[in-house]
Amino acid sequence: MTENLAEDLDALARELDADHVFHSWSAQSQRSTLVVASGRGTRVWDHAGREYLDFSSQLVNVNIGHQHPAVVQAIREQAELLTTVAPSTVNLARGEAAKRIVGHAPPGFDKVFFTNGGADAIENAIRMARLHSGRDKILSTYRSYHGNTGAAIVATGDWRRIPNEFARSHVHFFGPYLYRSEFWATTPEEESERALQHLRHVIEFEGPSSIAAILLESIPGTAGILVPPPGYLAGVRELADRHGILLILDEVMAGFGRTGRWFAFDGYDVRPDLIAFAKGVNSGYIPVGGVLISDPVAATFEDRVFPGGLTYSGHPLAMASIVAALDAMASEGIVDHAREIGETAIGPGLAGLAERHAVIGEVRGEGVFWAMELVADRETREPLPAAAMARLKSALVARGLLPFVVDNRIHVVPPCVVTEEEVAEAMTIYDGVLGTALEGEG
Amino acid sequence: MTENLAEDLDALARELDADHVFHSWSAQSQRSTLVVASGRGTRVWDHAGREYLDFSSQLVNVNIGHQHPAVVQAIREQAELLTTVAPSTVNLARGEAAKRIVGHAPPGFDKVFFTNGGADAIENAIRMARLHSGRDKILSTYRSYHGNTGAAIVATGDWRRIPNEFARSHVHFFGPYLYRSEFWATTPEEESERALQHLRHVIEFEGPSSIAAILLESIPGTAGILVPPPGYLAGVRELADRHGILLILDEVMAGFGRTGRWFAFDGYDVRPDLIAFAKGVNSGYIPVGGVLISDPVAATFEDRVFPGGLTYSGHPLAMASIVAALDAMASEGIVDHAREIGETAIGPGLAGLAERHAVIGEVRGEGVFWAMELVADRETREPLPAAAMARLKSALVARGLLPFVVDNRIHVVPPCVVTEEEVAEAMTIYDGVLGTALEGEG
Ligand SMILES: Cc1ncc(COP(=O)(O)O)c(C=O)c1O
Ligand SMILES: Cc1ncc(COP(=O)(O)O)c(C=O)c1O
Repeated sequence: MTENLAEDLDALARELDADHVFHSWSAQSQRSTLVVASGRGTRVWDHAGREYLDFSSQLVNVNIGHQHPAVVQAIREQAELLTTVAPSTVNLARGEAAKRIVGHAPPGFDKVFFTNGGADAIENAIRMARLHSGRDKILSTYRSYHGNTGAAIVATGDWRRIPNEFARSHVHFFGPYLYRSEFWATTPEEESERALQHLRHVIEFEGPSSIAAILLESIPGTAGILVPPPGYLAGVRELADRHGILLILDEVMAGFGRTGRWFAFDGYDVRPDLIAFAKGVNSGYIPVGGVLISDPVAATFEDRVFPGGLTYSGHPLAMASIVAALDAMASEGIVDHAREIGETAIGPGLAGLAERHAVIGEVRGEGVFWAMELVADRETREPLPAAAMARLKSALVARGLLPFVVDNRIHVVPPCVVTEEEVAEAMTIYDGVLGTALEGEG
Repeated sequence: MTENLAEDLDALARELDADHVFHSWSAQSQRSTLVVASGRGTRVWDHAGREYLDFSSQLVNVNIGHQHPAVVQAIREQAELLTTVAPSTVNLARGEAAKRIVGHAPPGFDKVFFTNGGADAIENAIRMARLHSGRDKILSTYRSYHGNTGAAIVATGDWRRIPNEFARSHVHFFGPYLYRSEFWATTPEEESERALQHLRHVIEFEGPSSIAAILLESIPGTAGILVPPPGYLAGVRELADRHGILLILDEVMAGFGRTGRWFAFDGYDVRPDLIAFAKGVNSGYIPVGGVLISDPVAATFEDRVFPGGLTYSGHPLAMASIVAALDAMASEGIVDHAREIGETAIGPGLAGLAERHAVIGEVRGEGVFWAMELVADRETREPLPAAAMARLKSALVARGLLPFVVDNRIHVVPPCVVTEEEVAEAMTIYDGVLGTALEGEG
């Protein structure tokens, strides 16, 4: 391809995008013009060959890296055989995928319900918890993201609406976040204890017998990679048990390798009742998500109709890509690698940056799941203003790094397969940008 | 593959399914044991080579037929290049897909928002209607299905919840259905007029200025392929316009060829404000859906943030499969074929069956979108009981036809590419089963 032709393709992509594509979570006039045409490992390219180091994993989903050959091959092979099938049929790829996922779960989780992504995984986990418990309310934290849906089944007119017509009250509470504690805490232990007392009071005032489930991201991701303090998740489990409340852990972003463990909660003394997953399970090569169901919850629907479903539940291409992705992650030690690179390269690298740049208020994370929290003032912890964050973001892209920027934070979230050299390269870029883009800033 | 090995694969698929797969809309003990391993056109096979004529199109989604070579090839090629990308980037396949879809829409629809399936297409259409109108209520019919979601965004704790916190009231009304009229009507014209009066009264009593949108399946599908009577859809449009209410047409099942038209509403004198699609757009080869947005609604979000989104919006493999599917459907005249086969083969075939079998109360439909409504008594129109329907279903499968059975109806919904010979084959099977499986039934 000549260089001109390649530039033309980028221009065509931008033109079609501007004319016809409606973008999420943004005003349309603010859309990005960054073209992504191909990828490999931790790198992506536009048509003209401009290269970017992907320290976003797109939307923190490409855990296995871009274009892993075994996963691509599995998709190509399944595509030759069967690309779509109704969920009610039996399909071998689906059974194999479910078996793999169950294989990484704690004992007592034997069934998987497949969805298209994270939001509908959460939808169905909530549905299961409500029907299993016979209760209605769902408690979740203010600093959380669980997906963008909330209406289709209540708009539906047929019988499937009726078992889903809950008052559907959602109550939000504060989770632990020591750096910006809601509980005037000064140590992790204090933050944990006080956050648990706060949750206990919310449960008591809401009425324990009205609460179906507590829904938590094991490690809140988009909200800032808020690693829970010691004892918190175990304490939530205890509170839930005391009142017959189910615990749903949202592992959509944190699961399947991101923390250096198969599930983020594996690092804590806690066992949920339902686990929602998506993203890392197949790195998003085909849209998919799902719910891992503990045996007592599954048993509820043995002779009783489960009133939930979707056309592409257990889609064969998604299933084949899960089998290949999880097998490759296991055989190539990708999850261990994520843990190690976090310990030996990303963690120390970010700590070094924090020493050199006063704008970094806190660095936290593990595996390939880190956040730098940027502040205008280390004393007051006042968040760096949006305009400065936008400048930082542009500067990172201009230097060839795809960043993941939320509020006043840069999330450092490369694929699990990122190498030491790539981490070093990224640290140099972050370092340069924090040094220059913020000049005269703080 | 030896026959034994093939039978072993079927057995393995059944065993893994029983052990690990949680199925939708059913009690788990009632799961099907039908294995589907491969397909081509209107036929699918299990591992052992047992063949089935697919008159269900799985979940009425395989419009282009199983394993269309051009679509499979497009998936294989895109898989080599880039399998996943963040929605905020620019991607050529996405722009090309959006352009194709816009090309089949009426003038004044220029933008497409992509989702993973039908439910989240409806979610986002409702969100757009509410934010565009500044109103809350959504009116839809009792006989409708719009998807299985309803909670994830209200469980979310971050800012994205707030613009989505509607009282979210959903009001249901009765649509036209002459065979079982809710309005004591005896002609299509009377049914149409009375259904419009009913809707007008519901709007007036609910308060027009509280209603964001009327949401309708252009032709309600799962509810029984309820082809609207003359003037109904145009009358709904008029009512909506009178009160500044948006009209959302759900074309998830009816769209992209099923009726023998690109959109089902193309056959009526009506123009919606938002069009939800999924299924037929790429025949489900990769999970995808979306919303076609009219220009005034799109303009609302030009400088204002659209508070909706999902990780796999505009997924590259889904986009490549849309481009290939729509191009093949156009160049191979697949939509026209669906219209013709409906007129020349399916319609006459079903009319013939209705003459021979008193159990058929009504036959209705067009294209490859038909229903036979089965009754215990033609006078009273009492639905055939569930036990008899279950027997019919088993008998059809035993004779090698995959049926689509809902309540007391057999939906006759093969791929658009079904041949005359295959229709004849299916009619023979329906004929035989209606003759024998119901013996002594009434
Ligand atoms: C923790 C968490 N849950 C749920 C979701 C929703 O997933 P999806 O975008 O696939 O609907 C996300 C998406 O970022 C997430 O991070
Ligand atoms: C008319 C209609 N709308 C919406 C949906 C939901 O689509 P999905 O199952 O892809 O979520 C369906 C599914 O059958 C449908 O028929």
